[in-house]
Amino acid sequence: MSANADADRLRVVLVAPRNPLNIGAAARAMSNFGFFHLRVVNPYELAFREARSAVGAEPLLARAEEFKTVAGAIDDCTLVVGTTSVGQRQLQHRVRRLDQGAPLLRKHLAGSRVAVLFGSEKRGLTNEDLSHCHWLLRIPTREEHRSMNLGQAVAVCLYELARDPEAFIKPQKHIPAAAADLERVTSLLLDALRSSGYLKCSPRDAHKRRSAAPTEEKIRRLVRRLHLSASDAELTLGIFRQIFWKLGSTKPSSDES
Amino acid sequence: MSANADADRLRVVLVAPRNPLNIGAAARAMSNFGFFHLRVVNPYELAFREARSAVGAEPLLARAEEFKTVAGAIDDCTLVVGTTSVGQRQLQHRVRRLDQGAPLLRKHLAGSRVAVLFGSEKRGLTNEDLSHCHWLLRIPTREEHRSMNLGQAVAVCLYELARDPEAFIKPQKHIPAAAADLERVTSLLLDALRSSGYLKCSPRDAHKRRSAAPTEEKIRRLVRRLHLSASDAELTLGIFRQIFWKLGSTKPSSDES
Repeated sequence: MSANADADRLRVVLVAPRNPLNIGAAARAMSNFGFFHLRVVNPYELAFREARSAVGAEPLLARAEEFKTVAGAIDDCTLVVGTTSVGQRQLQHRVRRLDQGAPLLRKHLAGSRVAVLFGSEKRGLTNEDLSHCHWLLRIPTREEHRSMNLGQAVAVCLYELARDPEAFIKPQKHIPAAAADLERVTSLLLDALRSSGYLKCSPRDAHKRRSAAPTEEKIRRLVRRLHLSASDAELTLGIFRQIFWKLGSTKPSSDES
Repeated sequence: MSANADADRLRVVLVAPRNPLNIGAAARAMSNFGFFHLRVVNPYELAFREARSAVGAEPLLARAEEFKTVAGAIDDCTLVVGTTSVGQRQLQHRVRRLDQGAPLLRKHLAGSRVAVLFGSEKRGLTNEDLSHCHWLLRIPTREEHRSMNLGQAVAVCLYELARDPEAFIKPQKHIPAAAADLERVTSLLLDALRSSGYLKCSPRDAHKRRSAAPTEEKIRRLVRRLHLSASDAELTLGIFRQIFWKLGSTKPSSDES
């Protein structure tokens, strides 16, 4: 990280952490390596309170932001990267080894906000969590023992991210779309797919999000893979608004009514 | 580490550790990164016993060797390296940054045994401990907060040591869509945009390509910017086919007929 300003653009996001010691350890590693913005999604309340009130707790813990959903926690970030201990399963995401992914993160941090997500101690990130990510980061552990302790995983990732202060960082021309824009594109596209019958659930069921979850996640991942710029996201939104409006306006004569 | 045999020559030495969780975490990181020989000098007995008997304790903890003195623990090693959070005080030792020291350790491990020492949580390594070391290793933490958690320090050091020096960026799996696929996506999208009224020209004019040329070109450029993979192009074609079919099937009631 060439400048503090770059490090200041990172958001470390702990999703559903359950152990106060791990939350505290994550915060300590952040302070060690100069990253100060912690976000916590849906933590086990008691654990979060205990971590904050622990003797010697990091000051950044007191300023940690709490969110109900992953979407809320990454809202203002233009790159969202999940961490996983799984290799190439059927993750449907590009998985980069930490040492290969870190330079990309640094490059991105030179211009805009990046969120790095860590899952809960037991299960890691869920498929729903992962569907918000552009790509995944994997610490190159031994095949036979992949799963790392949460606090240690955070420490290793931040060490790698903070490495090589002399690294030359190129300014990026591409201004990426924020997560909130991508989510808007996603939900308009989903609306259009429901109206067109591509997604089987009817518009009335659309609120029961769970039913069509796998396909929704597939579409969400697709949208993330497109690397839309901020202006292309606008353009795409305009397109789908029009398509959805047209599909909607013809609904009475369609088979969904 | 190029070979397991090299990793097998490392001895991780915890000197006077006091917290069972840290001992357990150090062992876990060792297992994660493929180092299996733990030595413990003069541990706080209760802590060591607790760490060994913990649920899910690493098997390597059961085989950990216990010593009364640092001298005993490094007896059979030809290179002894201490870890420190202190910079260049009057340490009277050469201090190397982890990323600069790790290649030297790897080189040495190719032929003989190396001990890496970690001090106790409170005080780190004493001057007496340090006097057994050839040189020292420092994790490049922030000036204002140098001291790392023991388990995290072990994890970061072993991550760096296990790092593949021959690491090269693997060719990407992303198989990009062929130009013909992109053009199929483009023309289906254009059809959908005409049917939806986003593009003003009617379907009958669609063959007179020139009329809406600037917008068409804009859309064509958009599709190229998405860097679609071959399989995402397929997915996208399916989406637009369905949308177009739906828009088309309602054409009689629309304003284009």
